[in-house]
Order: sequence, then structure tokens, then C-alpha cells
Amino acid sequence: MNRLDAFEAYRKKMNHRILEEKNHLGTKRFFNLDTAAYRAGALSTETKELLGLVASLVLRCNDCIDYHLIQCIEAGFSDEELDEAMHIGLVVGGSIVIPHLRHAVETIDMLRAREESAE
Amino acid sequence: MNRLDAFEAYRKKMNHRILEEKNHLGTKRFFNLDTAAYRAGALSTETKELLGLVASLVLRCNDCIDYHLIQCIEAGFSDEELDEAMHIGLVVGGSIVIPHLRHAVETIDMLRAREESAE
Amino acid sequence: MNRLDAFEAYRKKMNHRILEEKNHLGTKRFFNLDTAAYRAGALSTETKELLGLVASLVLRCNDCIDYHLIQCIEAGFSDEELDEAMHIGLVVGGSIVIPHLRHAVETIDMLRAREESAE
Amino acid sequence: MNRLDAFEAYRKKMNHRILEEKNHLGTKRFFNLDTAAYRAGALSTETKELLGLVASLVLRCNDCIDYHLIQCIEAGFSDEELDEAMHIGLVVGGSIVIPHLRHAVETIDMLRAREESAE
Amino acid sequence: MNRLDAFEAYRKKMNHRILEEKNHLGTKRFFNLDTAAYRAGALSTETKELLGLVASLVLRCNDCIDYHLIQCIEAGFSDEELDEAMHIGLVVGGSIVIPHLRHAVETIDMLRAREESAE
Amino acid sequence: MNRLDAFEAYRKKMNHRILEEKNHLGTKRFFNLDTAAYRAGALSTETKELLGLVASLVLRCNDCIDYHLIQCIEAGFSDEELDEAMHIGLVVGGSIVIPHLRHAVETIDMLRAREESAE
Repeated sequence: MNRLDAFEAYRKKMNHRILEEKNHLGTKRFFNLDTAAYRAGALSTETKELLGLVASLVLRCNDCIDYHLIQCIEAGFSDEELDEAMHIGLVVGGSIVIPHLRHAVETIDMLRAREESAE
Repeated sequence: MNRLDAFEAYRKKMNHRILEEKNHLGTKRFFNLDTAAYRAGALSTETKELLGLVASLVLRCNDCIDYHLIQCIEAGFSDEELDEAMHIGLVVGGSIVIPHLRHAVETIDMLRAREESAE
Repeated sequence: MNRLDAFEAYRKKMNHRILEEKNHLGTKRFFNLDTAAYRAGALSTETKELLGLVASLVLRCNDCIDYHLIQCIEAGFSDEELDEAMHIGLVVGGSIVIPHLRHAVETIDMLRAREESAE
Repeated sequence: MNRLDAFEAYRKKMNHRILEEKNHLGTKRFFNLDTAAYRAGALSTETKELLGLVASLVLRCNDCIDYHLIQCIEAGFSDEELDEAMHIGLVVGGSIVIPHLRHAVETIDMLRAREESAE
Repeated sequence: MNRLDAFEAYRKKMNHRILEEKNHLGTKRFFNLDTAAYRAGALSTETKELLGLVASLVLRCNDCIDYHLIQCIEAGFSDEELDEAMHIGLVVGGSIVIPHLRHAVETIDMLRAREESAE
Repeated sequence: MNRLDAFEAYRKKMNHRILEEKNHLGTKRFFNLDTAAYRAGALSTETKELLGLVASLVLRCNDCIDYHLIQCIEAGFSDEELDEAMHIGLVVGGSIVIPHLRHAVETIDMLRAREESAE
């Protein structure tokens, strides 16, 4: 199991634990609010996912970066578009972002490989 | 002089001090790189400014928020679009972002008032 | 008008602007969720406000510190209790928290003076 | 060895290295100050550990979360109490905290399992 | 009174309030530990103040930046040396640091003017 | 392969991917600017690497800490000097830095062991 598969399995398992078993009303509402924030409205879902990606990059959270990259690639962004968005994250957040940029680039490569093997 | 005018005057004065008088080559290059990151490429300048806005919001920097809001409104974003982008910043960054959301909303109102008085 | 009065007036004005005039559904829900998080449940409101205070201190947000100090003093915490909570914020967050500790101590003094003048 | 056992073994080994072998006076004093901050005074140790937990959550440090969860569960907090404290961390810190919430929930489950196997 | 004088007066007043009047033992120890950290040892006080400056810059705390700049200029650093140290803070911390770089450059100019008027 | 060797191999592989294959001009320039910032000028490379180390510590990035420790040890810093620099990072950044201090101390030990085995 590669690290992306492991992340997705862990995310699914723990979200189930938090949302179905723990069942804390406020936390469920927070998760719903989080999901709803990326739905199309005045801005498209595509643009919103890109906002989520750059926010995750400057806040330096690898799991959040991976989650938004999965959505961004599903939304159809090209590597060139993702590179430019991530470059903004790098410039805003500085060299401390570089390890997360490396992680993000590897994730994109893994997601492209997954796309190809699914064809 | 309102706070936006004061910010812009201070920003201009100190950028001149840093870029023209201090003349540190690396810092000049950093500023150029920062400017270049928002130029249209695979992504439009509009999308990039929105990325800069949300990054500034989650990193909680009022001056950066104001700078990107000026660009975003010049780029033609509607209040509804900006509200949705800022909502993503709020959800990603949490309630600690609220004081900066208040600041941002006030800045938008000031920029709209400036637009109207310029007509 | 002292800085606490100014903060409360600004907070009220901008919250009205955001929640009543802007009327972005997701953002209203976020504010409601934020309010609900501090309601008594398995933990008391008192304990929760103290958690909000220390979170605000380590994240270094003066407006959030002031807001939670207002709630904490209304909840009846003594200066000794607040000093111990803030000390934890200082130790966890380091000397970078010191300017916010100064701000917080001044806010407590202002709130105590307000209590006295109200008697 | 599960990840909690590994964390505790590593923490013990490296603290010994730092405090006994390196023997930097200032750093030893910092560790002592850190320990002392959680001792009962005007506030109980229980409340202080909860403050440490929420501070660790909003600052997004998994090792610190695990450390304070160990203390919180030893202090006798119920899952419901911990869920409410962590919910405040989630609301204050935003969706960027979610991966750390997943980690924290898993840690609580591991600590409960350890309690049961110790009976 | 310029902003540097105001900062120093406020800092002095609130430190007196915290250390002499409040008299929280742990917090006093923290302040002592903080002071001691910059004393000459294996590294010179000069180098340590520069470390404090860059740490303050990447953590984006204007009061901390001002405090360490006062020490750095007293320690005899030239503008060129400070510019290079701050450039590292800019590159590590990214464009979000720029407003604090502007503040720092203005502080240096104010401190140089104070030096001149003292001659 | 120990964790330092793994980090260096991953860093090299991903930097090649980013700089040679992706070839995003802005990102290449950022990396060049980052490298240039640590070159000797008004301040020595040694001092600059120490600034990079402390910045990495307070921003709590293990990969960045490891990178700068490799440079610092190559630059000839003694353990005592590194301990004092890291102590400043600990005091500025607080107890949330402790897990990264443990990591840093282990990295130093690994780098010293590597030096010895190379002799």
C-alpha cells in the first residue's frame, strides 16, 4: 500500500470513528460546514479546491495538501496550473514550505500514475 | 486619511526605502519574484490574486489581506465571490481568523466606497 | 473611548455587517458553531472559556484574547486563576507570546476597573 | 511496539540525552518550568492538562497532543469531556486541525485499550 | 512620543506590572530564563541577538522585532549585517514577512536617528 | 538506510524533479535565491546557517532543521554552540518546540557518528 492509499484508508477509518461512532454534534456540523465550503456557488468548485490547496501549503499540512490535490486533480487541473498555484504558496510561505512542496510534487506524480493505471 | 490610504502611503514609502535606497540585491529579487508569481500564466491573474487573499487570511496578516483585496477588486471580483473565498479561509483557519475577516470586510467596504467616489 | 470599548464597538458593528447584512449562510453557521462550542456540556462554560483564552494566547491574537478575557472575568475567574492559565500559554508558546501577555494583563486590569466603576 | 509505546520510549531516551548528558542549564530550567506549569495551584492539574491539550491541538503538534492526552486520561477525563475540549481546538484552529483531531482520537482509543488490558 | 518610545514605555510599565506586582513565580522564572538565553557563552551575545531577531521576523511579531533590533544596534551591527539577517528571515518566512520587514527597516532608521541625536 | 540518509536521498530526488524536470522558472529562481541568501557577505556563512537553524526550529520544520544542522556541522560549529542556538529557539518558540529539539539533538548525534565513521 503506497502512502496515498494509506492516507485515504486512515482518513476514511478515522472520519467514520469521529462522525459515526463518536457522534459529537458540533464536530459533525464542522465537518459538514467544511464540505459545504467547497461546493460551487459564486466561485466554482475548481477555484475553491485550488484555494484549499494553497491554504494547506502555506499552513504546511501534508495531509491537507494531499486531500486537496486529490480533489484538484479530479477537478481536472493540469500540472502547469498546479505548479503555478503551489508557486504562490511557496512565495507567500517561504522556504519553510519547500519540504511540503516536495511532498506535494510527489503526491501529484502518484496521482497521475494512479490515473494512468486506471485507464 | 483613512487606514487604507495610510497603508498604501506607508507601503509605498517603505518599499522605496527597501528597494531603491537599501538596494539589497537578494531582497529586490525576492520582491520581483513575488510580483511575478501573480502574473497570468497557466492560471489567470484573477485566480492568483484570490489565492494570495486566502493565503493571507489563513496566515492572519492584515496588511497582506488589504494588499490582495485591492488587487482582487481591481480584478473585478464581486462581493459574493470574495465572501466565498474568505469563507474558505475562515473554515480552514478557524475562529482565530474572525478578527481578520472583520478587517477584510471593512476593507472591501472602503474599497467599494472609493470606487463609487471615483465614478 | 478606551481600547476595550473600541474593540467591543468595532466587533459589534462588523459582526452585524457580516451576519445581518452580508448574510453568507456558511459564515453565519460558522459563527453559530463557534458560539455553541463554549456552551456548558460535559465541560462547564468556565473551563471552555479558559481553553479559548489559552488557545488565543498561543496563537497570538489580541482581539481573541480580549474576547475570551471578557468572558472569563464574567465567568468569575480570579486574577490568580487567569495568571496560571496565561502562564501555560506562555510556556507552551514561548517568549514570542510575551507581547500578548502584556496586552492580556492590561486588559484584565481594564476589566477589573470597569467592574469597580460599575459597582 | 505501537506508535504510543514508540513515542514514549523515544521521548524518554531523548529527554535523558538532553537533560542528563547534554546538561545545558537553561534548557534543564526550561523543562523544569514546563513541568511546574501544570502543577495544581489556583487551577487544578486537571484543568491545566486540558489547557495543554487544546494549546497543542491548535498549534498542531502530534507529539504534544499525545503527551497531554496521556496526562488527561490519567487525570480521569471522560471521552465526552475530551471530545468537547478537542472540539474547541477544532473550531478555534479550523479544518487544518482535522488531521490532528484524527490522530488525537486514535490516541485516545489506544490509551483506553491500554487501560483495559492493564485491568 | 514616536512609536519606539511608546513601545519602550509600555514594555517597561507592563513588565513592572507582571514581574513586580503580579509576582507569578513561574512567569518571573520564564522572563529570567529568556534574559539569560542571550548572555554570552559558547556563542556571543551579538550572535544570539541576531538569532532572536530572525526568529522574531519569521514568527512575525513586531514588538519582538523592535526589541531585538534595539539590542542588535546596541551590539554594534551595521545596516548591511542587519539587512542580510533580515533577508534570511524574508526567504525562510516568505512574502507574508514583508509587512514586518517594512516595520523593521523603519525601526532601524528610527534607532539610527536616535543614535545621531544622542551624539 | 538511517533517517538522515533517507532524507538526503529524498531531498535530492525531489529537488531534481522540481528543478530539472518540472522546470517552473519562478520556483527555480526561488531555490536560487534561497541558496544565495546563505552565501558569505556582511555576515559569514556560519552565522547565516545558524540563523537558518533557529528559524527552522521556531517554525517547527524537522526537514529544515536537519538541512541546516548538516550545514552547521559542516561549518564547524561545536555541540555547545549548537545547544545554545537551539536553546534560543526553545525559549522563543516555547515547549511546543520540544519535540523538534529532541529530533535536532538526535540529528546532531547522527551527524557526529557519521563524521567519526568517515575518519
